[in-house]
Amino acid sequence: MRLRDLGEFGLIARILRTAARRPSPASVVVGPGDDAAVLRPAPGEDVVVTTDALVEDVHFRWRTDAPRAIGRRALAANLSDLAAMGARPLGFVLALAAPPSLPVRRVDALVAGLLHEAARHGCPLVGGNLSAARETSLTLTAIGAVARGRALSRAGARAGDRICVTGTLGGAALDRARAERGRGQTRHVPEPRLSAGRALARLPGVGGVIDVSDGLDADLAHLLEGRRLRAEVDAARLPVPRGFGAACARLGLDPERVARTGGEDYELLFTLRPSAPGGARLSRRLGVAVTEIGRLRAAAPGRGRSFPAGGWRHF
Amino acid sequence: MRLRDLGEFGLIARILRTAARRPSPASVVVGPGDDAAVLRPAPGEDVVVTTDALVEDVHFRWRTDAPRAIGRRALAANLSDLAAMGARPLGFVLALAAPPSLPVRRVDALVAGLLHEAARHGCPLVGGNLSAARETSLTLTAIGAVARGRALSRAGARAGDRICVTGTLGGAALDRARAERGRGQTRHVPEPRLSAGRALARLPGVGGVIDVSDGLDADLAHLLEGRRLRAEVDAARLPVPRGFGAACARLGLDPERVARTGGEDYELLFTLRPSAPGGARLSRRLGVAVTEIGRLRAAAPGRGRSFPAGGWRHF
Repeated sequence: MRLRDLGEFGLIARILRTAARRPSPASVVVGPGDDAAVLRPAPGEDVVVTTDALVEDVHFRWRTDAPRAIGRRALAANLSDLAAMGARPLGFVLALAAPPSLPVRRVDALVAGLLHEAARHGCPLVGGNLSAARETSLTLTAIGAVARGRALSRAGARAGDRICVTGTLGGAALDRARAERGRGQTRHVPEPRLSAGRALARLPGVGGVIDVSDGLDADLAHLLEGRRLRAEVDAARLPVPRGFGAACARLGLDPERVARTGGEDYELLFTLRPSAPGGARLSRRLGVAVTEIGRLRAAAPGRGRSFPAGGWRHF
Repeated sequence: MRLRDLGEFGLIARILRTAARRPSPASVVVGPGDDAAVLRPAPGEDVVVTTDALVEDVHFRWRTDAPRAIGRRALAANLSDLAAMGARPLGFVLALAAPPSLPVRRVDALVAGLLHEAARHGCPLVGGNLSAARETSLTLTAIGAVARGRALSRAGARAGDRICVTGTLGGAALDRARAERGRGQTRHVPEPRLSAGRALARLPGVGGVIDVSDGLDADLAHLLEGRRLRAEVDAARLPVPRGFGAACARLGLDPERVARTGGEDYELLFTLRPSAPGGARLSRRLGVAVTEIGRLRAAAPGRGRSFPAGGWRHF
């Protein structure tokens, strides 16, 4: 069966039936089916909003990506942005565009992946929009909440800060490279670091925070943007998944390059004042392994924006 | 110049420069440029979320629609959904997908249209996402706020309710028909009924509320969905723009059909208990002309869903 056989309202009903099987948290006052959704943050919370799109043949390929994994990744990418703000999720809306010839089972699997991730992280589907299009795309907007004035920010990095990252880098890029060389479908689903982000929002001494979506190099550059800072990163300390070096070697890839530039890691990259906790204590508070990978230094004055001119030490 | 000459970050910088020219309201705690935006509703407000997409060759055509008007319409459609909930806007995010060959001046005009409408209605651009794609599409998500528990709803229509609509119907469809017959570009930009929606949220005796996006017939059907009700609508009372009948005649169109099924009117369609105010007093309270076009009646029992089987009186 194809989408054109089901029709717009048939597809909406089908998605809502699936979504309705999961209980809705109390923060959802009005769910899907009205002109808009109504969400209720706790008293004194700010509202956090992020949008992200996955487009066929740009962010995913039917040939190499399982539809369920595409759905899971789509929501994980949005939740990762909430994590980087220290927010808890309230809900998300989905704008799905697809050609009428798309098999319904693909949409079923996309939606199953989205709803699986939604249930895991308490971020229910609260509304959406369907449209015909030449290619398939999923545009998600996630809404979260954070204690008033306590949202984390990219700004706030200072000279002397320690540079830290959660989890491991390069796994998503390696998985993609493997699939592109015809070795099966992609398997990697990133883990949005929501608990770690919320813990960071309560931690004293946090500088700048960002999630690693474009890759370590590029996202570290975002943290330095407009500041007279340079980053000293120790390549030997970059946390990578088990067996990463050997797996890269088998595919003829440079592991350091994959870890630094691969992207879609969805780990949290952040800086900490020297006085903030570190080591095992920090990992324990964030509920995930944290690795200190370098330091921020003041860039030579008079050179304007320090990155990339001023001081990126390429390992 | 085309998008590929500007690059993703070039385009982001260009949009943000334009957006930054307009002052940001105090409810925007963090605007574009971080991992997510942070908005601050007033204490005790619920948060309202709606998403809507305009896709090239589905919702607009470069041949018949001026890019600036496309941008204006895209935001107006989202704001209309906030209006139908009785919400005030806090901000919106934009996911723009476009082919790298798209001329930058088209994007400039789209964005100018969006920001024009944003400034008029106090709904600033607070974030977004850019992606390459085969066709151009704009997916907007608008965030609003409404006094806790006071959001309007599609549910709530009852037998005996008067059926009312703001403004006029059919203007958008007539404009589209004219452009499709090669008589210039579309000119119609809908007016989201935000003030009227907020007034309705404070009015006693309001039943169901929806905005007219699919057309009067279809959206009235949404109000009746799942209820044992039928709608008696008096075709002679349907409010249409000045000169509508003659303009339809010139194009060989049936004016009643255009008014009932044209869609994209973005007027508010709502029902009122018999005791609620009406006539000029109602129009004054809502700040827009309101026309009573019919009544809801109980449908014969035992017939299940009354629409369309039960009682739609086709004028």
